[in-house]
Amino acid sequence: SGMWGGRFSEATDAFVAEFTASVQFDQRFYKQDIAGSIAHATMLAKVGVLTEQERDDIINGLNTIKAEIEAGQFEWRIDLEDVHMNIESRLTQRIGIAGKKLHTGRSRNDQVATDIRLYVRDEIDAILTLLEKLQKGILGLTSKNTDTLAQPVTFGHHLIAWFEMLVRDSERLIDSRKRVNRMPLGSAALAGTTYPIDRAYTAELLNFEAVAENSLDAVSDRDFAIEFNAAASLIMMHLSRMSEEMILWTSAQFKFVNIPDRFCTGSSIMPQKKNPDVPELIRGKTGRVYGDLMSLLTLMKGQPLAYNKDNQEDKEPLFDAIDTVRGSLMAFADMIPALVPNIEIMREAALRGFSTATDLADYLVKNGVAFRDAHEIVGKAVALGVQESKDLSELSLEQLQQFSDLIQADVFEKALTLEASVNARNHIGGTAPAQVAAAIERAYIRLEKLYA
Amino acid sequence: SGMWGGRFSEATDAFVAEFTASVQFDQRFYKQDIAGSIAHATMLAKVGVLTEQERDDIINGLNTIKAEIEAGQFEWRIDLEDVHMNIESRLTQRIGIAGKKLHTGRSRNDQVATDIRLYVRDEIDAILTLLEKLQKGILGLTSKNTDTLAQPVTFGHHLIAWFEMLVRDSERLIDSRKRVNRMPLGSAALAGTTYPIDRAYTAELLNFEAVAENSLDAVSDRDFAIEFNAAASLIMMHLSRMSEEMILWTSAQFKFVNIPDRFCTGSSIMPQKKNPDVPELIRGKTGRVYGDLMSLLTLMKGQPLAYNKDNQEDKEPLFDAIDTVRGSLMAFADMIPALVPNIEIMREAALRGFSTATDLADYLVKNGVAFRDAHEIVGKAVALGVQESKDLSELSLEQLQQFSDLIQADVFEKALTLEASVNARNHIGGTAPAQVAAAIERAYIRLEKLYA
Amino acid sequence: SGMWGGRFSEATDAFVAEFTASVQFDQRFYKQDIAGSIAHATMLAKVGVLTEQERDDIINGLNTIKAEIEAGQFEWRIDLEDVHMNIESRLTQRIGIAGKKLHTGRSRNDQVATDIRLYVRDEIDAILTLLEKLQKGILGLTSKNTDTLAQPVTFGHHLIAWFEMLVRDSERLIDSRKRVNRMPLGSAALAGTTYPIDRAYTAELLNFEAVAENSLDAVSDRDFAIEFNAAASLIMMHLSRMSEEMILWTSAQFKFVNIPDRFCTGSSIMPQKKNPDVPELIRGKTGRVYGDLMSLLTLMKGQPLAYNKDNQEDKEPLFDAIDTVRGSLMAFADMIPALVPNIEIMREAALRGFSTATDLADYLVKNGVAFRDAHEIVGKAVALGVQESKDLSELSLEQLQQFSDLIQADVFEKALTLEASVNARNHIGGTAPAQVAAAIERAYIRLEKLYA
Amino acid sequence: SGMWGGRFSEATDAFVAEFTASVQFDQRFYKQDIAGSIAHATMLAKVGVLTEQERDDIINGLNTIKAEIEAGQFEWRIDLEDVHMNIESRLTQRIGIAGKKLHTGRSRNDQVATDIRLYVRDEIDAILTLLEKLQKGILGLTSKNTDTLAQPVTFGHHLIAWFEMLVRDSERLIDSRKRVNRMPLGSAALAGTTYPIDRAYTAELLNFEAVAENSLDAVSDRDFAIEFNAAASLIMMHLSRMSEEMILWTSAQFKFVNIPDRFCTGSSIMPQKKNPDVPELIRGKTGRVYGDLMSLLTLMKGQPLAYNKDNQEDKEPLFDAIDTVRGSLMAFADMIPALVPNIEIMREAALRGFSTATDLADYLVKNGVAFRDAHEIVGKAVALGVQESKDLSELSLEQLQQFSDLIQADVFEKALTLEASVNARNHIGGTAPAQVAAAIERAYIRLEKLYA
Repeated sequence: SGMWGGRFSEATDAFVAEFTASVQFDQRFYKQDIAGSIAHATMLAKVGVLTEQERDDIINGLNTIKAEIEAGQFEWRIDLEDVHMNIESRLTQRIGIAGKKLHTGRSRNDQVATDIRLYVRDEIDAILTLLEKLQKGILGLTSKNTDTLAQPVTFGHHLIAWFEMLVRDSERLIDSRKRVNRMPLGSAALAGTTYPIDRAYTAELLNFEAVAENSLDAVSDRDFAIEFNAAASLIMMHLSRMSEEMILWTSAQFKFVNIPDRFCTGSSIMPQKKNPDVPELIRGKTGRVYGDLMSLLTLMKGQPLAYNKDNQEDKEPLFDAIDTVRGSLMAFADMIPALVPNIEIMREAALRGFSTATDLADYLVKNGVAFRDAHEIVGKAVALGVQESKDLSELSLEQLQQFSDLIQADVFEKALTLEASVNARNHIGGTAPAQVAAAIERAYIRLEKLYA
Repeated sequence: SGMWGGRFSEATDAFVAEFTASVQFDQRFYKQDIAGSIAHATMLAKVGVLTEQERDDIINGLNTIKAEIEAGQFEWRIDLEDVHMNIESRLTQRIGIAGKKLHTGRSRNDQVATDIRLYVRDEIDAILTLLEKLQKGILGLTSKNTDTLAQPVTFGHHLIAWFEMLVRDSERLIDSRKRVNRMPLGSAALAGTTYPIDRAYTAELLNFEAVAENSLDAVSDRDFAIEFNAAASLIMMHLSRMSEEMILWTSAQFKFVNIPDRFCTGSSIMPQKKNPDVPELIRGKTGRVYGDLMSLLTLMKGQPLAYNKDNQEDKEPLFDAIDTVRGSLMAFADMIPALVPNIEIMREAALRGFSTATDLADYLVKNGVAFRDAHEIVGKAVALGVQESKDLSELSLEQLQQFSDLIQADVFEKALTLEASVNARNHIGGTAPAQVAAAIERAYIRLEKLYA
Repeated sequence: SGMWGGRFSEATDAFVAEFTASVQFDQRFYKQDIAGSIAHATMLAKVGVLTEQERDDIINGLNTIKAEIEAGQFEWRIDLEDVHMNIESRLTQRIGIAGKKLHTGRSRNDQVATDIRLYVRDEIDAILTLLEKLQKGILGLTSKNTDTLAQPVTFGHHLIAWFEMLVRDSERLIDSRKRVNRMPLGSAALAGTTYPIDRAYTAELLNFEAVAENSLDAVSDRDFAIEFNAAASLIMMHLSRMSEEMILWTSAQFKFVNIPDRFCTGSSIMPQKKNPDVPELIRGKTGRVYGDLMSLLTLMKGQPLAYNKDNQEDKEPLFDAIDTVRGSLMAFADMIPALVPNIEIMREAALRGFSTATDLADYLVKNGVAFRDAHEIVGKAVALGVQESKDLSELSLEQLQQFSDLIQADVFEKALTLEASVNARNHIGGTAPAQVAAAIERAYIRLEKLYA
Repeated sequence: SGMWGGRFSEATDAFVAEFTASVQFDQRFYKQDIAGSIAHATMLAKVGVLTEQERDDIINGLNTIKAEIEAGQFEWRIDLEDVHMNIESRLTQRIGIAGKKLHTGRSRNDQVATDIRLYVRDEIDAILTLLEKLQKGILGLTSKNTDTLAQPVTFGHHLIAWFEMLVRDSERLIDSRKRVNRMPLGSAALAGTTYPIDRAYTAELLNFEAVAENSLDAVSDRDFAIEFNAAASLIMMHLSRMSEEMILWTSAQFKFVNIPDRFCTGSSIMPQKKNPDVPELIRGKTGRVYGDLMSLLTLMKGQPLAYNKDNQEDKEPLFDAIDTVRGSLMAFADMIPALVPNIEIMREAALRGFSTATDLADYLVKNGVAFRDAHEIVGKAVALGVQESKDLSELSLEQLQQFSDLIQADVFEKALTLEASVNARNHIGGTAPAQVAAAIERAYIRLEKLYA
């Protein structure tokens, strides 16, 4: 390429030029590249490396180029390799020699590292917004189902479990954002630069919390991308678990929940099918993000410092994870609040599942039986129920007393109704409707703090 | 979508429609889809489900559509979800009711499974061609370097090691091709179809070796994609090892080999740099293919039979692995035969590395010392060499005799020259130039058999 | 260590000695190590490097050591690093100087590569035996269920799908076995040896199909381990899908199948629970083998030839995959033939699921409606059924005729009974009981060929 | 097993019992299990579920059992499945009926979740201690090498890059520790318990920061294990990069650094070899931890809530990652401070590599040339240097002036000496010795804060 070709005696092979170019995918962060260049030029002018005129020409030129790109009028050239050289080359074309001065005191190594961090920072913020929307959507659905009986917990309690998973995802992204938000710019190729740069000033212009402490590390470090992809993998893992449950719950055998038609598709040959496409697809997309994580980990394994061409491969697995997480969260943020629980069916299933067996054991314990012995007694009662196809509450008092004469008539009310069973789990974290209601209240307060 | 919407009361959400569509990426196998449909229609006519006229209309229609696609005149529609429904819908638009009959006796489940297999089969063949080119390129370079002394082996011997890796890759692809080349078509959604289809005939038309034996398995099976990605991961692993060696060898410290300029790029800030971009990039791309493998494995884990929407995610990781392997092999097939070994530098390095230490031990063994004792003696001689910064051949006979009086003047000629050392490893698989030359001859014969 | 310490001025740090030792896990292939040494000594004697007496002393010594190990009387020493040096050191202790001659013409690099291949070859054979047992167990259960109606296929047909998966696993192992069964011995450290070895003879003694063609490649190659772990990952993926189905089928909502108590456990707090522990655990173990595959792929990425200490890490992920696959196959080979299908419940579920909708569409097609139009018509009929909570066969003829007047009274018998639906899929690969019976017959013949 | 067998009619198959048991590996956290039980019993007594006598008997019994275990006198029984039931069973054996009461109000589900968290919390603290030791070891070595010239940075600057990586690792572990340190106990099987438990009190006794907010989530959540393994993967990735560099630097071609003999081993056949075993082995161990991460991610994918037997597989990949990270950090914490740089060789290498080319470009820029033009000029000068095998500082002024007449005699002193080059990068993060010294000072302060 014309931009570094001074020492070369032979032109780059055409296939090699395309094979090694990145502009096909790194043009995605043109906005961050331009913002970074504007901050860099502003700083260079402040320390006297550029004149104010040069700075203004550069800024105006870059803003025009940004408009060109957004209007679809920018011609991206493979022979200019990447987003950086495409923009710089166009800048020089527009403003002349000042354009050739922009790259003073920096290198593509610190430039691209800065661009990706700015990009990931923006995407983390966008994902946090989606997570918040989904979290609140779950809380809304929970509010309507604090005392809907599902199997052995209330449906609302189950939904809060989903909420908790997703809150951890937000926490992790917020923690990781600190490590994203450190500025590599000023590291140049790897050793720093001989110009009297003011990195703190550039960092302030770009809203970075800190400057990267070591230039060699700053251009080599892709931890933040891996940490993001690990957090993204956990998000997808959570969505896959939620998906699995929705797929089960909407199956012909469960029918616990309906997904509105607008989130489903049919079959090209079996007209009766209504497929839970969105959860199935999202369950499937989990593998993709795991793969993206593995790609980046493998990429960085055993690489000597500092920037090697290997690192060009850091972008696509990161972009793919970002896109997948965003799309999946958008779909769920719409779909989950629209779920329709089949309250009667869930209640019947709960009745059929010996849900109150533990309550019977606890009843015995409260009457003086040691827990392990109570457990043994109830096991035998259940075996009888299975044999007679009856729930514990459908066995007669006499039948129950076969197993322990401590069982009295109050057992049916105190232990063997679903409501009693659920209400009795009345401590923080328990499934009692009162606890679920309290959990919702705390949840809104926690969200407020989290996103403050 | 209009194609399966009979039972639905609500239109698909626009975002969901896009999120769940696959036409953006599965249009890639339009050619295989059309070939499959033509074979299917031909078979349906043979068994009397279609008239000859209908068959001919379908075939002509499909061929026209293929031409439209290749001319860039086909409008792919997201609302038609995938390559199959896009083509079928256009067919009906062109030829009327006969188009609506094409899908008789099949389902998208067996259709897509057939398309992917046809596609992978084609790609395996293309990759085998590239592997063959690279293998022969290596043999060509080897022929020129059968007696180039590198460190402790000849350079030619080292190249044959690369060749052997790549031959295993071809073997694996050839083995896996058998499992790709079985036809799912006729499985319909999962249970087979009520029409009197002739699967053997369709298989013959499409050059499949066999029909899939069980319809439920046939639509669920993605083993072949995973097996391909595993083979692709091994290819990339091999290329990453070759890359690592070229990166080392071209470093300022080694200088064993030059890569022609046309495969390299420079630095935007350090004008003196000539980067081994192609090997670095390919080393980096390894992670990507590993990630693709992991994506597919995760995708299929724990999926109940048969086709679930999850499986739509089988394509992109497969395509990405295919593209990466093809691009990487193309780059290496061009570049590796063009490597320029620095024969003098390699020879000097071999001299400096105590390469003949084992030969001295073997010399002692041939004079009656037990191997373990010989090993101990040589270790001490080396320690002296390190201390005096001398190779073993530069120590005096007196110095050597300190460690064993079995060492005589003939040691220099019989054991301590590089040529003697290399020539002495004269058995099948050994590094002696004569063996390398013989290995090349055998290699060409093996390739002929492999690609017969 | 005493075995290579000649040039060293400082003893190995104790922690380092333990950290870098492998004897804790590589003692697992003592049998292969001894077999390899016996063959090596036999060959050395044949070519005159050892006397017959030395050979016999070595062989007798090694056999005694083998007996010591198997009697639990062998003291493995960490300071001797690995299985090779532990055995060699003990040999020298027992037989004196001849023991020091055993290592002539080989290196630990080719020795360990040979040991692992022998070990993997044995394990592949053991796994093939387990696969065969499981495959036949499935066929046995299938034979009893060729016409058990499940949803929309027969239960027997579903079982054949499992069988097909596992047959591919056997095929893959058999293919990979060829690449395992090549002998590295004779490669020495990486360049071959100066002794007049007869590799073909050693290979014959050890039942290797061929000698590795290049010494450098032979000591560096771990493809076979990765290929094994990839095949193992596919086996586990298959077992995870079977597990998922068994977990679903045994759930309170499905109840399609019972797993005998001896394969289940209970809950420590909910006495009514009978957990499908074995399938859940095996589903969980899938991740472990995927991880083992990823470990090996990462391990080999970017490693320059030949043997680096990194490669010591090749063993545990391989062993873990072998153990996990063996244990899982043993558990399933016992459990699956013992599954008890609940025939009535499966039949009822099939009735409730609009299983015959496609048959109605096919009925219409046979009466002249284009497939896509028929599909649309049936979709509307299903919508009515959903609304009225009736299967298609429970709708009246009048209700059906609303959607098409081509529907006649024969529709109930020809299209809307489960038996008709299943019987009609009467082509190779289809679910018709006659086809399932034929598939079983072919299956036994295929197994015979496969394991010939 | 006797502990949950009430409902079962058939004994567990012996192989199944062993296959499904976990005591072989979960006995590792007996200490945490006992601490958790003591806290649980203390809380139960506080709320009146146990008497003070029962509480004391339990606590004494458990302490005795702990002593038995630590003395190697405890007999672990496979038929008791896991660490929990082994200890509880022994407790009942020792103290009678009070032992059977210990499990009141809890389940193995919340018990094991608590144990693992306590265990991981302890291990994070141990790993942080090792990281601190290694970080300080690096700083110590850095202090001695602030102005050691390496290629194009000082050796001290390079070491600080290593330090920065490891500091991020500590930050990540500290962040993740918050999410480990939440107490599941009180969640019972998944719904909470009917006893009037005081979770806050138990949490206080066990030093948990908070109680888990939702019982269903609390027993299902393994995020913390995955988050740990992701952090561990990053640690290993960093160690693999450091390893790669040490392997390069100690190679015969580089010789930049010596690793003391006590961290190295020799070759069994090439006595002259001194292998950098520790870094090679650690580079290899990276794959193992990546695999452990992938295992856990796969394990949790698509699992419906709450605890399934799959989750038994959460332990070994976690333990393996912990052990690998601890061992690797211990080895490096010893080895790295003992590295011996070859100062002269590094300086010479820096001289040979056109290290000052960028400085020449900057010199031109300071004399008014636009950066891109300067870059072009220097490229040509370098090409001449390559051709004449001379460093830029070895070209004559006349030769340099060919390319630009702005080059004056002062160029040699101002731009072309290594010292000038390094000293000029004098800003935060730059390689100037003064900056490295300042970085060390800041580093110690940061460590103090980090581990406060």
